[in-house]
Amino acid sequence: MYYRLTQSVLTLHQVLRFIVDISSGMGCKNCCSICLQCLFGYETNVMLVINNKGVGALFRLIQFLIIAYVAVYVCWVQRAYQDTDSVISSVSTKVKGNILTNSSAAGVHVWDVPEYVIPPQGENTFFVLTNVIPTLGQRQSKCPEIPSEVTKCESDSDCKEGYSEVHGNGVQTGRCVQYSDTIKTCEVQAWCPLENDTVIPKPALLGAAEDFTVLIKNNVQYPKFKFRKRNILHHINSTYLKNCTFDRKTDPHCPIFRLGDMVTEAGEDFSVMALKGGIIGIFIDWNCDLDFPERFCIPKYSFSRLDNKNPENNVAPGYNFRFAKYYKTNESTETRTLIKAFGIRFDVIVFGMAGKFNIVPTIVNLGATLSFLSLVTAVCDWVMLTCMKDRDLYAKHKFIHLNQNGDSVPLSSMETTSYGTP
Amino acid sequence: MYYRLTQSVLTLHQVLRFIVDISSGMGCKNCCSICLQCLFGYETNVMLVINNKGVGALFRLIQFLIIAYVAVYVCWVQRAYQDTDSVISSVSTKVKGNILTNSSAAGVHVWDVPEYVIPPQGENTFFVLTNVIPTLGQRQSKCPEIPSEVTKCESDSDCKEGYSEVHGNGVQTGRCVQYSDTIKTCEVQAWCPLENDTVIPKPALLGAAEDFTVLIKNNVQYPKFKFRKRNILHHINSTYLKNCTFDRKTDPHCPIFRLGDMVTEAGEDFSVMALKGGIIGIFIDWNCDLDFPERFCIPKYSFSRLDNKNPENNVAPGYNFRFAKYYKTNESTETRTLIKAFGIRFDVIVFGMAGKFNIVPTIVNLGATLSFLSLVTAVCDWVMLTCMKDRDLYAKHKFIHLNQNGDSVPLSSMETTSYGTP
Amino acid sequence: MYYRLTQSVLTLHQVLRFIVDISSGMGCKNCCSICLQCLFGYETNVMLVINNKGVGALFRLIQFLIIAYVAVYVCWVQRAYQDTDSVISSVSTKVKGNILTNSSAAGVHVWDVPEYVIPPQGENTFFVLTNVIPTLGQRQSKCPEIPSEVTKCESDSDCKEGYSEVHGNGVQTGRCVQYSDTIKTCEVQAWCPLENDTVIPKPALLGAAEDFTVLIKNNVQYPKFKFRKRNILHHINSTYLKNCTFDRKTDPHCPIFRLGDMVTEAGEDFSVMALKGGIIGIFIDWNCDLDFPERFCIPKYSFSRLDNKNPENNVAPGYNFRFAKYYKTNESTETRTLIKAFGIRFDVIVFGMAGKFNIVPTIVNLGATLSFLSLVTAVCDWVMLTCMKDRDLYAKHKFIHLNQNGDSVPLSSMETTSYGTP
Repeated sequence: MYYRLTQSVLTLHQVLRFIVDISSGMGCKNCCSICLQCLFGYETNVMLVINNKGVGALFRLIQFLIIAYVAVYVCWVQRAYQDTDSVISSVSTKVKGNILTNSSAAGVHVWDVPEYVIPPQGENTFFVLTNVIPTLGQRQSKCPEIPSEVTKCESDSDCKEGYSEVHGNGVQTGRCVQYSDTIKTCEVQAWCPLENDTVIPKPALLGAAEDFTVLIKNNVQYPKFKFRKRNILHHINSTYLKNCTFDRKTDPHCPIFRLGDMVTEAGEDFSVMALKGGIIGIFIDWNCDLDFPERFCIPKYSFSRLDNKNPENNVAPGYNFRFAKYYKTNESTETRTLIKAFGIRFDVIVFGMAGKFNIVPTIVNLGATLSFLSLVTAVCDWVMLTCMKDRDLYAKHKFIHLNQNGDSVPLSSMETTSYGTP
Repeated sequence: MYYRLTQSVLTLHQVLRFIVDISSGMGCKNCCSICLQCLFGYETNVMLVINNKGVGALFRLIQFLIIAYVAVYVCWVQRAYQDTDSVISSVSTKVKGNILTNSSAAGVHVWDVPEYVIPPQGENTFFVLTNVIPTLGQRQSKCPEIPSEVTKCESDSDCKEGYSEVHGNGVQTGRCVQYSDTIKTCEVQAWCPLENDTVIPKPALLGAAEDFTVLIKNNVQYPKFKFRKRNILHHINSTYLKNCTFDRKTDPHCPIFRLGDMVTEAGEDFSVMALKGGIIGIFIDWNCDLDFPERFCIPKYSFSRLDNKNPENNVAPGYNFRFAKYYKTNESTETRTLIKAFGIRFDVIVFGMAGKFNIVPTIVNLGATLSFLSLVTAVCDWVMLTCMKDRDLYAKHKFIHLNQNGDSVPLSSMETTSYGTP
Repeated sequence: MYYRLTQSVLTLHQVLRFIVDISSGMGCKNCCSICLQCLFGYETNVMLVINNKGVGALFRLIQFLIIAYVAVYVCWVQRAYQDTDSVISSVSTKVKGNILTNSSAAGVHVWDVPEYVIPPQGENTFFVLTNVIPTLGQRQSKCPEIPSEVTKCESDSDCKEGYSEVHGNGVQTGRCVQYSDTIKTCEVQAWCPLENDTVIPKPALLGAAEDFTVLIKNNVQYPKFKFRKRNILHHINSTYLKNCTFDRKTDPHCPIFRLGDMVTEAGEDFSVMALKGGIIGIFIDWNCDLDFPERFCIPKYSFSRLDNKNPENNVAPGYNFRFAKYYKTNESTETRTLIKAFGIRFDVIVFGMAGKFNIVPTIVNLGATLSFLSLVTAVCDWVMLTCMKDRDLYAKHKFIHLNQNGDSVPLSSMETTSYGTP
């Protein structure tokens, strides 16, 4: 009896049983022989072989489908045998280009990189100025607010001292003063003169910025696989880098991008976008199969607009911010030039997953599929036992019935007598 | 014999065997018929059916538990049938608000966005100034150090020329000079006059900044699922956006946040935090189940303080940094205003995983659970063969023993004669 | 017959069959008893036990190998029983240190943090100035270009009005003017005088910056596990923090790093790197096993150079950018100091995965391995049926053949008569 009990596919079962036997102290005299039998006896299923072409064909077909699914989809398409790691990235950017503008107010002015790239560092997000509303000579004083529905007034009682309107430019003094000959508005303590941003220069002052180029240096690594690579590939040399510009067809690996090209690829019109600004995403896709040689792991660039240009369902469309340059004309008085800067913010977004063969996901995926192969048997059994004309015969041989009263009904009820009662 | 050998659940086995047969050249005359038999014969386990209510109930119970676990936990709670992707995000922020301060030193001053938001761009991290220690009119020269244990001196021999103390403000000249009537300190070459930051303005100069609002525009995408969405949802229109403020109960989808509300939600007191500054995390959780319609994928906002306010186990509590505005009074001399800026840095942290039905994780999870169903049989076998009173009978019918000497001991030892020796 | 059909390991099968039975209306009188039989009857495989030491040992060996693989590799090394989450991080940095420079052009100058750390905030990327090329007193005007192959000219016809050369400093006016006594270059409208960056100061002006220290405060969280931690560990007190410096051996948990030490650990020479700048990655690895107590989850720091110093296969080696300080000498004229800033950008890159026991990956991994245990049986069967001398005997007992004509060929062909035809 010991022998039989210890014969199971699962070691857990065996170990449990074995411990029970030993601890109970029974049968200790033949412990050794039992152990050996338990360890080296081999147990295998008794199988019924049916020579039925229908069921056999069905069995093979389902088996084939599952194996094909594993081979094609799991292994080839989804690469489920791989362990994955996500990318760690470092980006530096450098814009090049100069623009000459000639406006009636400011005269001839050349804009160079330190002036139109803000902040100047060149990290993974950089902003290129395309349009400006400058307000010169601001200083702390009092002046009438820009007219709007909430700032217009008739008398001092319409204004509230110390009140700061959310969309206003300063803090009200409580007085109502002349803004122009016909309009009176509340006076505010603020940096005066106030900025008037109702009219945006059109065409954009720095619309020619589309000819600027940007060099993007991107260094990625997959720490789990100790893999490092740069977007300046091995075969690219300095001479090529000095003259190339990214082009999806002719120069797909050149890391120098013309701003106008990127905006066009994102489906936008640079001259329109330059007016009010916006955000362009520069996506660098580093998805790599590291089972292949390192040279196949190359970045794929794509561009799309990230902000919403739809005027409904939006507030403050475009992209702008205000900054100021501070001056001191003499020791005591500080003046500033306020600049409302419209422009395009470029976000370099690096993403990707690397995969490399690893035994754990392979085992998990193959093992799980193997389980499904056992489902095939269940389906075929069902077909065999319900749809075949010989189903009663099959069932008779497949199942051995053993009743509560100890009778076995082994293969067919007629033969119970042969070895029913031991 | 060929026939039998080729009957196994595993194709690997069959293929191996088949190759052996073919390559050995034996049986080549009936190759075809063997092939067909091998391909279309069907093989199924012979089962012993026991009509025992105890074991049967146990079997069903464990089966039910496993299936319930899969249905409820794996599928419903953990959504293990889904493929996942992590979020890619782009953020832009815009602060609004003005403050009037009236200090004895600086007089009446209105602070607007370009002055108190640093840097002005509005990326995913923005800083709002809440307290300042300004030092006006600094220029390169020599002056006595701020008194401290290491800078106080009696004579020139206590100071070291060229020594730069880590927490000091400049480089020592080697002279010991009068700081005040009673105190002498080492002289330093530095931007003089030195900043004295021992006394922090209290209450915070820009404590009223809690009324400022910030508009957060967040654009996310899940590249694997080609899914894009903004935090300004479809049903929100421009009119609503111009006036709303985020409120967890009444306006949970308004992307405009009052600074004071965020700090309060993070469990902090704005007026206390404004004194020395700190870091507040604005968490936007984009966890989405993309098997549901897109409109159910909405951002969830939460706020918490990220720096440590605990004074023990800390150094330089709060959040501050120094920056300077540079002026030139005449061609040759540069002066600057040094500003020690205390304030709250808001980090917009976007995270989330999207899940969508995919056949691979489904197969893997179901397959693995199916494997566990086979464990049930092992457990029930063990119960059947050890705990039941009919265990000997069951064992006799379950196991067919075949000895080394070729005798089979099939179901009970008494019946060996019936078909023991072939 | 109902009874037999409903006896399968798979409930799917049973449920299907049951529905068929009920809906067909047949056997409805004994529905109840069938149901009970179907639910509580238990079915188990009939096994053939072979007492062959070879196959038995092989079986145990493979079983042992698979179980050892699971225990050691899957559980211990890969921790496949854990659910994982990736880190969310917030970083603030603060540099300390002063440098005195004494150049013939600029005289004695002390550099403090607001001057050499750009931008001043101290976020997860900070830049420390190490070398500068200043150009003082620039204003909008016209001047001859810096001589180069493309800017040298003989006459006005060599220059093109309005042309902006990519690597140039301004927009050409179309005139050819004297640059020096012997060289003529195209005149440009630009910020004049132009910067001449052909000679880089050597040694680096702020080469002593290697003695600066930076305090890095890092706050991480794993939202899935509601886990938060800082890189200033619990056992570190304020006194220690004020004086410590990171050292891999003596102070591995001190969050204050000497710049020179980091560059050395990255395998670079600070004085060389200071000349032209570069990017250093400060990697903070927060990989944690959250099944262990929280105190074992500590950050690991490492440093490496992220940009490419190899002069071939590169463009614009090192790291530099230009920024300007703007001045107004009188109301109308704006001048600026242009600074070409070389320096080291430090990118604090926080990464890591936390794992915590979760039932789903455990089930999936164990289940999949369990499937592989069934492979063992297949291998042993193959050995048993092809390599053993008793293979015919084993095959005879393992397979019961059932022919198309209804004859069963159960264990050996000789015994067909005993219970072949029912």
